[in-house]
Amino acid sequence: MRSEARTGVWFVGARGSVATTAVVGALGVSHGLAPSTGLVSELAELDPDGLTPLGNLVFGGHDISSTTLTKKAESLVAGGVVPAEILIAVAADLEAVDADVCLGHAAGEETTEEAVERLAGDIADFRRRYDLVRVVVVDVASTQPPVDDPEQLTCLDDDLPVGAVYALAAFRAGAPFVSFTPSPCLRLPVVIEAAARAGLPYAGCDGKTGETLLKSVLAPMFVMRALELRSWTSVNLLGGGDGETLSDPAAARSKTVAKRSGLDAMVGRSVPGPMHIDHVEDLGEWKTAWDHVRFDGFLGTRMTLQFTWEGCDSALAAPLVLDLVRLVSAAHAAGLSGPLPELAFFFKDPVGATEHRLSEQWRDLVAWRAGLAG
Amino acid sequence: MRSEARTGVWFVGARGSVATTAVVGALGVSHGLAPSTGLVSELAELDPDGLTPLGNLVFGGHDISSTTLTKKAESLVAGGVVPAEILIAVAADLEAVDADVCLGHAAGEETTEEAVERLAGDIADFRRRYDLVRVVVVDVASTQPPVDDPEQLTCLDDDLPVGAVYALAAFRAGAPFVSFTPSPCLRLPVVIEAAARAGLPYAGCDGKTGETLLKSVLAPMFVMRALELRSWTSVNLLGGGDGETLSDPAAARSKTVAKRSGLDAMVGRSVPGPMHIDHVEDLGEWKTAWDHVRFDGFLGTRMTLQFTWEGCDSALAAPLVLDLVRLVSAAHAAGLSGPLPELAFFFKDPVGATEHRLSEQWRDLVAWRAGLAG
Amino acid sequence: MRSEARTGVWFVGARGSVATTAVVGALGVSHGLAPSTGLVSELAELDPDGLTPLGNLVFGGHDISSTTLTKKAESLVAGGVVPAEILIAVAADLEAVDADVCLGHAAGEETTEEAVERLAGDIADFRRRYDLVRVVVVDVASTQPPVDDPEQLTCLDDDLPVGAVYALAAFRAGAPFVSFTPSPCLRLPVVIEAAARAGLPYAGCDGKTGETLLKSVLAPMFVMRALELRSWTSVNLLGGGDGETLSDPAAARSKTVAKRSGLDAMVGRSVPGPMHIDHVEDLGEWKTAWDHVRFDGFLGTRMTLQFTWEGCDSALAAPLVLDLVRLVSAAHAAGLSGPLPELAFFFKDPVGATEHRLSEQWRDLVAWRAGLAG
Amino acid sequence: MRSEARTGVWFVGARGSVATTAVVGALGVSHGLAPSTGLVSELAELDPDGLTPLGNLVFGGHDISSTTLTKKAESLVAGGVVPAEILIAVAADLEAVDADVCLGHAAGEETTEEAVERLAGDIADFRRRYDLVRVVVVDVASTQPPVDDPEQLTCLDDDLPVGAVYALAAFRAGAPFVSFTPSPCLRLPVVIEAAARAGLPYAGCDGKTGETLLKSVLAPMFVMRALELRSWTSVNLLGGGDGETLSDPAAARSKTVAKRSGLDAMVGRSVPGPMHIDHVEDLGEWKTAWDHVRFDGFLGTRMTLQFTWEGCDSALAAPLVLDLVRLVSAAHAAGLSGPLPELAFFFKDPVGATEHRLSEQWRDLVAWRAGLAG
Repeated sequence: MRSEARTGVWFVGARGSVATTAVVGALGVSHGLAPSTGLVSELAELDPDGLTPLGNLVFGGHDISSTTLTKKAESLVAGGVVPAEILIAVAADLEAVDADVCLGHAAGEETTEEAVERLAGDIADFRRRYDLVRVVVVDVASTQPPVDDPEQLTCLDDDLPVGAVYALAAFRAGAPFVSFTPSPCLRLPVVIEAAARAGLPYAGCDGKTGETLLKSVLAPMFVMRALELRSWTSVNLLGGGDGETLSDPAAARSKTVAKRSGLDAMVGRSVPGPMHIDHVEDLGEWKTAWDHVRFDGFLGTRMTLQFTWEGCDSALAAPLVLDLVRLVSAAHAAGLSGPLPELAFFFKDPVGATEHRLSEQWRDLVAWRAGLAG
Repeated sequence: MRSEARTGVWFVGARGSVATTAVVGALGVSHGLAPSTGLVSELAELDPDGLTPLGNLVFGGHDISSTTLTKKAESLVAGGVVPAEILIAVAADLEAVDADVCLGHAAGEETTEEAVERLAGDIADFRRRYDLVRVVVVDVASTQPPVDDPEQLTCLDDDLPVGAVYALAAFRAGAPFVSFTPSPCLRLPVVIEAAARAGLPYAGCDGKTGETLLKSVLAPMFVMRALELRSWTSVNLLGGGDGETLSDPAAARSKTVAKRSGLDAMVGRSVPGPMHIDHVEDLGEWKTAWDHVRFDGFLGTRMTLQFTWEGCDSALAAPLVLDLVRLVSAAHAAGLSGPLPELAFFFKDPVGATEHRLSEQWRDLVAWRAGLAG
Repeated sequence: MRSEARTGVWFVGARGSVATTAVVGALGVSHGLAPSTGLVSELAELDPDGLTPLGNLVFGGHDISSTTLTKKAESLVAGGVVPAEILIAVAADLEAVDADVCLGHAAGEETTEEAVERLAGDIADFRRRYDLVRVVVVDVASTQPPVDDPEQLTCLDDDLPVGAVYALAAFRAGAPFVSFTPSPCLRLPVVIEAAARAGLPYAGCDGKTGETLLKSVLAPMFVMRALELRSWTSVNLLGGGDGETLSDPAAARSKTVAKRSGLDAMVGRSVPGPMHIDHVEDLGEWKTAWDHVRFDGFLGTRMTLQFTWEGCDSALAAPLVLDLVRLVSAAHAAGLSGPLPELAFFFKDPVGATEHRLSEQWRDLVAWRAGLAG
Repeated sequence: MRSEARTGVWFVGARGSVATTAVVGALGVSHGLAPSTGLVSELAELDPDGLTPLGNLVFGGHDISSTTLTKKAESLVAGGVVPAEILIAVAADLEAVDADVCLGHAAGEETTEEAVERLAGDIADFRRRYDLVRVVVVDVASTQPPVDDPEQLTCLDDDLPVGAVYALAAFRAGAPFVSFTPSPCLRLPVVIEAAARAGLPYAGCDGKTGETLLKSVLAPMFVMRALELRSWTSVNLLGGGDGETLSDPAAARSKTVAKRSGLDAMVGRSVPGPMHIDHVEDLGEWKTAWDHVRFDGFLGTRMTLQFTWEGCDSALAAPLVLDLVRLVSAAHAAGLSGPLPELAFFFKDPVGATEHRLSEQWRDLVAWRAGLAG
């Protein structure tokens, strides 16, 4: 019965690397062409049988780019992210998804009110067109700069950041919203109130995919062992799209603030050390992070941990996006509304939560899921 | 009142690096010359005020070496482990401790029964001499090779490994026992039964101080994120004493077996990959571990984590030894006996426990401590 | 005129990764499908216009495997070594080369004399069939174990290592010989004498492609700066074919001996430190080397260099093989015979040379090439 | 005879880490308390017996700090740079040197002409006081920012950078000058002309002590092997004094410019990639550099080299300073004047030289030294 019900996934940034990988991957995994590696929602602890099957997800979205999903997928094949044979197998489905991508919102081309109305209409049309039980909107667009005084943004007339416009459109369309990109939007009163009025759940911000993931297990380790962190240096080399956005210092600031604050929260004080996010064009879809951690042991002995993490950003992000769709969908079905702090496990900068330690986040997530299922 | 009661710490290997660092450090910290960095038992979660103060610990032990604690401490100062000013401040105390070091047991020089009787006598004399409420015996001697068929070692007549002789001596003297070194002794029926008969608690084996500590937070991270571990390569470069012992392949086997089995237990299957423990003389008291972890992400994307850990073995081990003394002492005071699985947090190869994930071990430890205190 | 003359390349191990990459690459580069990256013989200092053009090379060889070059090339495409579009473009040519692969020699199936005669016949047939000015034989088969007493191997009746059989066949067929694999064959009196009798040049052994390449610039740096090397630890993780061969300790010994001796020669004394060569199946065509170098600076200050090298073995080796063919061919055309020590630049364990420093080897090579051309 | 002649060493920044380590080290090595590790001028290729013995060097200098050499040396002992026993042995000598430290020049407190005259007088007095055959002035003060238009600085009236004032003072006092710190001073016409008029030799700039040293052997390796450098990322973490100066972006620019230009010169084109110099307070006298090098191999295969260099800046710099004093002294004795390009081996940004490859610089140095000696 449940397996009959189809759920919509509406991507903000539907033709970007993360959304494309998520769509190709959901199709590939549901057709049995790839294992469920990376999909947290397929772990037994999260009761996957009670969640919407990947094969019941229907994809669409907004984008300001006119490069098709197919073109994007081809570049992901060339970049070593998506296996060629999977793309070949899902090519027709992918073209169909691309036909459901509508023109996105660019600041200045319409008023905020016009934009919210138009975007919400696209989402509602999509739901009707495919007779979906619900649509979850996920923002996987580029990093958005922080706003200086979020408390001031209380109404539609304000100069709202673009992510907030999409969140408002989602809520107007009756859809839960996930902010997977670094963005201030879920901290704005106008957005929080809209969700409350609509009685809808939301989750965010900024997917925890790489270096911060490691920090969320390593920092607690130092704390549990009473080892004294003296400095923590983080260097992130990013290629391709996300790297380019982050060469904009304002956008980069959004990301570094999120990364820093989690570390300090876990340690209980500010840990000094530089943090860099650099764009290195030739890395393509890949990113390399190097962290250098200086800590003191017993009697002040000086010790060091270094690590290098080499991953593919889209391949790390895409399964988490699918996990979030399935879990937020279940929350919506259960009638939850407001922030979902138990999804902190997925985010660098979790809304509604102060817990940054991965193991504790995992425990909270598993307990929450059991409550939903029970 | 409690602060009046003095507790004995009896080291097997009392003149080695770990014991010496523990003694110098306990004196230094209790005199306010160094902070409590590295001492887990000083964290608020473990209710330090309810544990024996460091200043109430009285040290002694067995060793087959005639190099004094003072000499050893001087070499630790030269090696950058112990600050010179601390050694100067505690020099007289240290000499006093050295006077309480008795001749250890070497296989072949006395029968096992004679050895147990003599060693137990030394421990009992020590307790009487200083009017101690109890003595905790801690084995920090060199790595001991595994035995091929531990189930066969059921009585004193057997060809017992040296660690077992000390454990039996501890139990005969009415003292709880901690096996901090890699050793099969706490798995031998003759030892387990002696503890049961004496109604004494014990904990072990093989202090988790470095690379395995990292594994105990990183492996669960991969599992929680449904990332597929394809290989895990571990290289350990050790200087000085422990390194030398481990160039003996039989001893090294004891250590690699413990390291491997924990990883496999956390992942739920065998993860391939070489593991090396090498002696590199010039590293002195320091060790460097390099791990190379290959894992697959979504759609089979190939990713890598590498880390390098540079630490000082004695400085990592010594505070844990003091933690264990305080916690096992509290367990004994509370009337516990048998293995203490809640102390798995401290060990690579915990007796009585199957949990290897650090966060879960920490939670178990905190809950257990709260139960003791309550 | 010269560009009309075609030169044969006869691979021992013609269906292995290195030979396949070399053939596909030579075809791809000569058709303008890939740049000449990695081809030392295309650098201006080596006067590439005076060397046989890649397009004038004709390939054949021996192998005991019946897996075709095309199959092997497909696995190299899957492993990320060869771009798919190049394989598609050269597929027909590759099949033609495979038709010129003859059955190799396996010990025990024929006498050494029979083998040499048969293999030499294959090479001579190949030369006649394509009207080649000369054929250069290159051994890129698996690592061969060292022999205990090379001086004793003076005649054909002896229990010759397999590489020596191929070298003797090359010389009988009038072809220069390059030993690119770790092999003792160019140190055996019977081989050296056969080359001398035939008046043919030869070069080897063991292509310098990765970690040893780095050592050949880093060790001289320490020496030039009077920094004292205290230990040098080397860990090599190899996937695929070569890795598998090297899990045979005898074969691995051949490789570690070569790697060690070069370092010691550059430093002028023995530098301690473990060296490991490990097979890590899932690395496929890739290898990762980690080196940890401890050195002392002024007043005994302790310092460290670590590096991690992640490369593709076949892609590192294949262009060097083509370079060697072109340079040895030029040497043969110029009438040189015996060992070619000026090609030490390409080898871990150069025959006829004691120089291991890369810059000096490069200078020797450039001067030698200028002499040939002049 | 030569061993009777004493040579003066006059440090600009005489109470800094580098000068202090050089003084303590020269005394320690000449008294046989430490080996000559790190002293290039003690290598046989540079004919050490023909150079001024370390024991014949007499030290003095300028500084604006009033912290004594002894205090500084004690902090270097605490920081693990200088062994305590050496400081104890040379304590009296060190105090004597401190008595020969004169007040340095701070911009704004005197005119440039007054400063040059006063500083030159200090140097000349020092020479007379100790009856020295010559004095070599070495600038080891903090990094100085680049000047925007060096060609405009042609006379004493100009707003000269502080390093230039010291260079002019050295030349007025008849002393050769070495600029070991990053500084534009040896590129200024007013300085170049003063040296020419005085007929004095000079050498600089910016001692090549760490990451750039590695680049000067690794970049040529990639070039010699025709491997294509796609990006080179450099991260430098510096503690203590030098790190603090470099948190001033203007000063940091001086250093990054020098580091970049050498790499580009060796590769023959601009290699992209970020470069960071960060101040990490708790590193103290130590620095850690991490470099991430992406390069293409044959057929465009993507490969990577990473290295981590952990060194002590003062211990790397101090012996080179002593080497330069001895070699510039020999050049002066031989009547050389103007820039000494053959000393490029020691510098990141060599004046008068375009060669950045270490091996070639070494060859030039050895040939030049042989010419001097011959």
